[in-house]
Amino acid sequence: MQQLILGGVRSGKSRHAQQLAQESDKPVTLIATATAGDEEMLERIRRHQQERPAHWQVIEEPLALSAALQQSDDPGAIVLVDCLTLWLTNLLLEEDSHRLEQEQDNLLACLPLLQADLLLVSNEVGQGIIPADPLSRRFADETGRLHQRLARACDRVTMITAGLPQTLKG
Amino acid sequence: MQQLILGGVRSGKSRHAQQLAQESDKPVTLIATATAGDEEMLERIRRHQQERPAHWQVIEEPLALSAALQQSDDPGAIVLVDCLTLWLTNLLLEEDSHRLEQEQDNLLACLPLLQADLLLVSNEVGQGIIPADPLSRRFADETGRLHQRLARACDRVTMITAGLPQTLKG
Amino acid sequence: MQQLILGGVRSGKSRHAQQLAQESDKPVTLIATATAGDEEMLERIRRHQQERPAHWQVIEEPLALSAALQQSDDPGAIVLVDCLTLWLTNLLLEEDSHRLEQEQDNLLACLPLLQADLLLVSNEVGQGIIPADPLSRRFADETGRLHQRLARACDRVTMITAGLPQTLKG
Repeated sequence: MQQLILGGVRSGKSRHAQQLAQESDKPVTLIATATAGDEEMLERIRRHQQERPAHWQVIEEPLALSAALQQSDDPGAIVLVDCLTLWLTNLLLEEDSHRLEQEQDNLLACLPLLQADLLLVSNEVGQGIIPADPLSRRFADETGRLHQRLARACDRVTMITAGLPQTLKG
Repeated sequence: MQQLILGGVRSGKSRHAQQLAQESDKPVTLIATATAGDEEMLERIRRHQQERPAHWQVIEEPLALSAALQQSDDPGAIVLVDCLTLWLTNLLLEEDSHRLEQEQDNLLACLPLLQADLLLVSNEVGQGIIPADPLSRRFADETGRLHQRLARACDRVTMITAGLPQTLKG
Repeated sequence: MQQLILGGVRSGKSRHAQQLAQESDKPVTLIATATAGDEEMLERIRRHQQERPAHWQVIEEPLALSAALQQSDDPGAIVLVDCLTLWLTNLLLEEDSHRLEQEQDNLLACLPLLQADLLLVSNEVGQGIIPADPLSRRFADETGRLHQRLARACDRVTMITAGLPQTLKG
């Protein structure tokens, strides 16, 4: 089962995914895409660490997501990726359009090969005013396009609002 | 029955809540959290006044929401709070982190004690691009966290889009 | 059948509407509201052109939408308008409040008279942080109000997230 979990800022999407991972009773690998670039992000990472069980295996991978997924693949396990929007941001900040495209293609290409269950967490960022600055607009475009591709590939898609899930697919 | 009504800008969330209040056939108390800080806000307040029945009891309370709820409590009545995002904004502008936290805790603590029916209206603000300025980001974080807490506490949660309700809970 | 299709940036709302138009097996007229004001918009228009069938009749109309709808009306056809948010933006940039109001009233007034099936595509822009600049705030207000009016008038309203439709009405 491969599942995409979308939600806005502090919508409870990570918590929902963590709960699904725990209820699966399988060994959990968390692929964390955040990098501790500043104090605020460090604080968010710390809070996420406190909220999740200490025995989870954690892989920190800001860019090479499909490689990390393939290396940690295991038919009896569940892998939680939190979150795709940070990964896209990291790729955009690399300013390497070819890699940005390639990493997304790699992710889509590796999904059918994975044997572990998969929980992909991502931010819904497209339902507000379209931002004026070109980088934010590009980010919104890339995110929307990626969500469409992943939603087609995944077995289940869920939207979280105020901590409450709505099933969009599956 | 305690209900949380979420929706974007001009989504029809206030109108939906007002309709529910009227259909209840109970005496309605409106707790309005807006303060007439500038001409635009004054205009919004005027428009809201025109849209609602003249016989409703109106309490204007920008900050001490739980106190206002407890003072206006009445087992046969329905209380409409419009809206929580303005209340959070007012608290954030006070620049008193302790009070910001305390008022939210007070709100959550008083909910199980209230005897009146309750309609809480709030803005969904977390599904667009994450804003660059720290105050907006803090506001989005606080709002998202509050919505999660209230959604757990309320009997029903509804999301309004284009005037149309979707039931998220209840 | 008149249908309103809402969705965020790159949510797949145009693609969804195009698919409905094709599946109808009726002759399709597309009313495109985009104007090629800059390179980025030109690129978006080109991409949209590539994605749609070449035999569709295309009318480019940035402002006089109800006139275009009435001129292209045909009981056996389906008309796709893509998109209303660009049309509202074009009207706002005219800085003629009377015309802004009039064109929206004209659109609402002509809907019951149209004999063709209708697919109206529009951007959900109200579920992020309320923007600080007055023009964006006005745009969000106008869009929200228009969506409410159209949602009442249309037979079906659909919200697209990650390419996946949710029925809000009908």
